[in-house]
Amino acid sequence: MNTKSSNNGLLIVGSVAYDSIKTPFGKIDKTLGGSASYFSLAASYFTTAALVAVVGEDFADADKDVLAKRNVNLEGLKKIPGKTFAWGGEYSFDMNTRTTLFTELNVFENFKPQLSETQSQAQYVFLGNTHPALQLEVLNQISSPKLVGLDTMNYWIEKALPDLKNVLGKVDLLVINDSEARELSGEHNLVKAVKQILLLLKQSPKTALIIKRGEYGLLLFAENEIFNLPGYPLEDVIDPTGAGDSFAGGFMGYLAKIDATNMESLKQACVAGSALASFCVEKLGTERLQNLTENNIQKRMNDFKTLTHFEI
Amino acid sequence: MNTKSSNNGLLIVGSVAYDSIKTPFGKIDKTLGGSASYFSLAASYFTTAALVAVVGEDFADADKDVLAKRNVNLEGLKKIPGKTFAWGGEYSFDMNTRTTLFTELNVFENFKPQLSETQSQAQYVFLGNTHPALQLEVLNQISSPKLVGLDTMNYWIEKALPDLKNVLGKVDLLVINDSEARELSGEHNLVKAVKQILLLLKQSPKTALIIKRGEYGLLLFAENEIFNLPGYPLEDVIDPTGAGDSFAGGFMGYLAKIDATNMESLKQACVAGSALASFCVEKLGTERLQNLTENNIQKRMNDFKTLTHFEI
Repeated sequence: MNTKSSNNGLLIVGSVAYDSIKTPFGKIDKTLGGSASYFSLAASYFTTAALVAVVGEDFADADKDVLAKRNVNLEGLKKIPGKTFAWGGEYSFDMNTRTTLFTELNVFENFKPQLSETQSQAQYVFLGNTHPALQLEVLNQISSPKLVGLDTMNYWIEKALPDLKNVLGKVDLLVINDSEARELSGEHNLVKAVKQILLLLKQSPKTALIIKRGEYGLLLFAENEIFNLPGYPLEDVIDPTGAGDSFAGGFMGYLAKIDATNMESLKQACVAGSALASFCVEKLGTERLQNLTENNIQKRMNDFKTLTHFEI
Repeated sequence: MNTKSSNNGLLIVGSVAYDSIKTPFGKIDKTLGGSASYFSLAASYFTTAALVAVVGEDFADADKDVLAKRNVNLEGLKKIPGKTFAWGGEYSFDMNTRTTLFTELNVFENFKPQLSETQSQAQYVFLGNTHPALQLEVLNQISSPKLVGLDTMNYWIEKALPDLKNVLGKVDLLVINDSEARELSGEHNLVKAVKQILLLLKQSPKTALIIKRGEYGLLLFAENEIFNLPGYPLEDVIDPTGAGDSFAGGFMGYLAKIDATNMESLKQACVAGSALASFCVEKLGTERLQNLTENNIQKRMNDFKTLTHFEI
């Protein structure tokens, strides 16, 4: 194992959960889920991610093994009395609408991560979607990161905007979807929304914003430049759960691997993240992310080039 | 004037209309519009388009001059007794919804184009959105085209499907939007929809399908390959009217200019068409399409490259 990668490399702080998912193409109960699981599995194809999360006594060794087999650093996975965060959701016929059937926070409700000295020295850090005040508490424990990314959701924009703005001012990179960007900025036009949101982030040459647009792909804004990457055109989307976290994991894992944060590196990382997200949705839960090959990933990254490049 | 371009080059058969448009950013009454107007103005930056359309006695010389100044071949613009096709529409605050306030077909109702011998020898032909039976009548007058493209709309998919399928089987290229593609195929998944629609078209090495996705850009399917081009990220969209026709005009004009129909040429033509469409929406009506420079267009085509290209 590469010591640099596992100790000072990539840190993901987020959720490990049991998901119960129903899509038009399948159904699975109590399967390994949560932002940190998808993230670290996706990142594992580029670097060793150190995961910080909490699970309950019901968390099975077999699920821990799924992460361990992909060489995820599980020193930060705490098992405490109580039950693991559980989520149930169902997708509509066209996959465009997701209905949450239940959310049982369980042990995740009082999640207060205390980073070890090694974890606090991580160079690439991703703050998974939780209360922005908690994201800030984690961030305050990081000593001198090269790049900190953050995910959030409409719930925090509506319920904890001052806390969210506070933590946004201390991170380099925000990853959100287009409707969240419009809600956060109050601007319908996406280019105008982006200009406002970029000002909320920590101002540095590394400041970057990624707007996810579902099947349409993403827009990356950094260094006063815009980059578009389409979604990978898939004939069969089996389960969209975890696609966003897989993107973030592939993206951050790629950056940690090449250890660079300039615009060209960010573009490449978007391709890596999109490749992982496109694999993720091909099977239920984390299944597809468990058994990819380097060749699978390289081929799909090349497919993105064929899909987008032209000569003029 | 280049004789080859004007006589055997590009032919557009469609509507010339008077539009009354209201958007959140402006309002204009009785301005030059219609598919053939936007198409031929956009195409004019690459080649001379011959326009076949009908107008009424109210059609002003000043509007004819708008087209003539861009060197559009107006031999096929017939003025007959009655009034010019008139359309009125209003856009919602976010530009996502367009409400038609009135449609007065007037002289367009009995439009039965009889092509001249020169027009019938056109190499690149675009059949603007009208009744598919009429599109077929026009197509039957074309002697030996290199590429025939067609536009249609949900109305004809619902009201004249047998006629539409009939003409589709005789054209090389279909340009429709994603909701129309889903409606025409009965498939929600776009990749599956495309497979079905491609089978409806004339089968040849030139068979191509372009799916427009509004602000998200387009997908091109040809030669068993997929190409994605994003929409140009604009801060101010003043008036979306004519964007689709401007795309088609730029696209077909570019192909006629380079006189090629292989996949790489189709990709370049998509960039040309998208550049013209992005200019079109920057001002009300056809205004922006009247005064572009070669440099404006080349710069925007290069912007599309910056927006989409990456190294891996």
